[in-house]
Amino acid sequence: MKTIRTSIIGFGAVGQGVAKVILSKNEYLNNMGIDLRVVAIADSKTAVIDENGLDLSAVLARKLEQGSVGSENIGGTEIIKTVEHDLVVEITPTNINDGGVGLGNMIAAFEKGMDVVTSNKGPLALKYCELEEMAKNSGSQFKFEATVGGAMPIINLASETLAGNKILSMEGILNGTCNYILCRMMEENAPYDQMVAEAQELGIAETDPIYDVEGIDTACKLVILANAIFGMNATYKDVSVTGITKITPEALLLAQNNGYDIKLIGEVNGSKINVSPKLVPKDNPLAVGGTLNVASLQTDISGPITITGRGAGSIETASAILSDIISIYKD
Amino acid sequence: MKTIRTSIIGFGAVGQGVAKVILSKNEYLNNMGIDLRVVAIADSKTAVIDENGLDLSAVLARKLEQGSVGSENIGGTEIIKTVEHDLVVEITPTNINDGGVGLGNMIAAFEKGMDVVTSNKGPLALKYCELEEMAKNSGSQFKFEATVGGAMPIINLASETLAGNKILSMEGILNGTCNYILCRMMEENAPYDQMVAEAQELGIAETDPIYDVEGIDTACKLVILANAIFGMNATYKDVSVTGITKITPEALLLAQNNGYDIKLIGEVNGSKINVSPKLVPKDNPLAVGGTLNVASLQTDISGPITITGRGAGSIETASAILSDIISIYKD
Repeated sequence: MKTIRTSIIGFGAVGQGVAKVILSKNEYLNNMGIDLRVVAIADSKTAVIDENGLDLSAVLARKLEQGSVGSENIGGTEIIKTVEHDLVVEITPTNINDGGVGLGNMIAAFEKGMDVVTSNKGPLALKYCELEEMAKNSGSQFKFEATVGGAMPIINLASETLAGNKILSMEGILNGTCNYILCRMMEENAPYDQMVAEAQELGIAETDPIYDVEGIDTACKLVILANAIFGMNATYKDVSVTGITKITPEALLLAQNNGYDIKLIGEVNGSKINVSPKLVPKDNPLAVGGTLNVASLQTDISGPITITGRGAGSIETASAILSDIISIYKD
Repeated sequence: MKTIRTSIIGFGAVGQGVAKVILSKNEYLNNMGIDLRVVAIADSKTAVIDENGLDLSAVLARKLEQGSVGSENIGGTEIIKTVEHDLVVEITPTNINDGGVGLGNMIAAFEKGMDVVTSNKGPLALKYCELEEMAKNSGSQFKFEATVGGAMPIINLASETLAGNKILSMEGILNGTCNYILCRMMEENAPYDQMVAEAQELGIAETDPIYDVEGIDTACKLVILANAIFGMNATYKDVSVTGITKITPEALLLAQNNGYDIKLIGEVNGSKINVSPKLVPKDNPLAVGGTLNVASLQTDISGPITITGRGAGSIETASAILSDIISIYKD
């Protein structure tokens, strides 16, 4: 049995999902030869540390009751620098302007030769190649399946499961909020604003949905895929981005009457990285409904391979983090 | 660089596909630290052996011109027993009555501690647990992604990419011939016999299509999935099987008018393994057209994950064999 000491830096919905999944999968991990101990958890204000392993149930209960994980006044970066552990699960909020605290956390982890598993898109959309290089030089593992598509395992599918293939191009729906809004606009023949409001009421869209509806979230994910799957050296500024805010019910009706959906499609093709609304035939594997995500890979010897799954959700995103942890440490 | 000596036993369309793929991916394999040398190839009548590695282009050309791979009068099993090598790529025709020569070939390989990668469903549909046990006891690797879904990587997706998940159930379309026939019956409002004839003309259905249209092929694949993904101890006789021969254009029309397709669905759910035609809503991810295969996994923490790909084709099936080879030998 390999003992792996980990921190969870960031303890919002996904961070709590990770704690819940680690709790429920303890025996499963042990059966794979992994004794995973969470030695530190930090939220935006507080932290809790126990080098022998935290009682995750107690921490989750405290977060629920008090809104904070603990009483220690120490930041995530400081934990990475001072608490002895092997793995940083970096789940602070995405910031695509400067990478936010996540970027510093990742750098601090790599400087100490620690492994990083993350769902934080910002640092990867800005500094993918630098981070990969740092991880390589320090002998760290760096995995980020959870940054793209939630539970949909597109990165590991392309780079491991489809080993032997050259991936020629990729297109997909990488933002469930936009997909939900477009589907509902078509179903109800309703205007954009009305369906954004509905999505907000249901918790599918955020109070300020600009990050999703303007295609920015999709663009960040495409940058990660362009680098991780296609070996490009891309950053956010290389993406051509159009969102869904100008789609009308009339356009959707016209598409529908001709056998098409309108979907916000992200694609990587040659050197082009593009996000824009596109007509998709209703019988195409990309024409998935609701908040689902989907990605279709064109490969040289396997032909087209399409994968569909839930693109969001705290437990679903935590599942991607767990699969990355297992792939690093399994015997 | 690791030198791996392999035989290819069976040299029909898929066997030749494997040779072509190994030829075209030589540099790719070298970059992964694998020097893959094919030291023996056997078809049903002849064989060719070169312990230093065969010239695959020459063998492929000879097979095309003369219909046979070589002049040596030695069978596949004898090659496995007498030629020194590490890996047997077993691609003889599927026989679900007694496992055919494939079963003996796999046993012979495991007795010598050799690894086996195969697309041959027969031995696995009949003797999965025995073969797994033999492989385990002899320290052999045993991989069979190519037995189910051609290029669609369902086994490795479930067991590796989705590590951490418990797979709760699976349903899918695992036979492209049936899917083609049903799609075309619906499109043309045409009877079963007519569309079987069309599929035969196009090389999508065999001269005797019973194995596909009666659901036998799907049932064999389900047995393999039930064992490999769900840890069952199932054989072909545990499957409840109904084929597509009694589906009428009227039934398809009625389904279509209510927003459904009729698909031959295979499912593993609890202890039930079942193949039968089912109504599938047209907007369900399982409603794929043409000869595509699709599988939808219900998981405990990732939710539903659906994968779609080409279920047949010599290069596509060879791609699954290549990915298995890489997963065994990559550094």
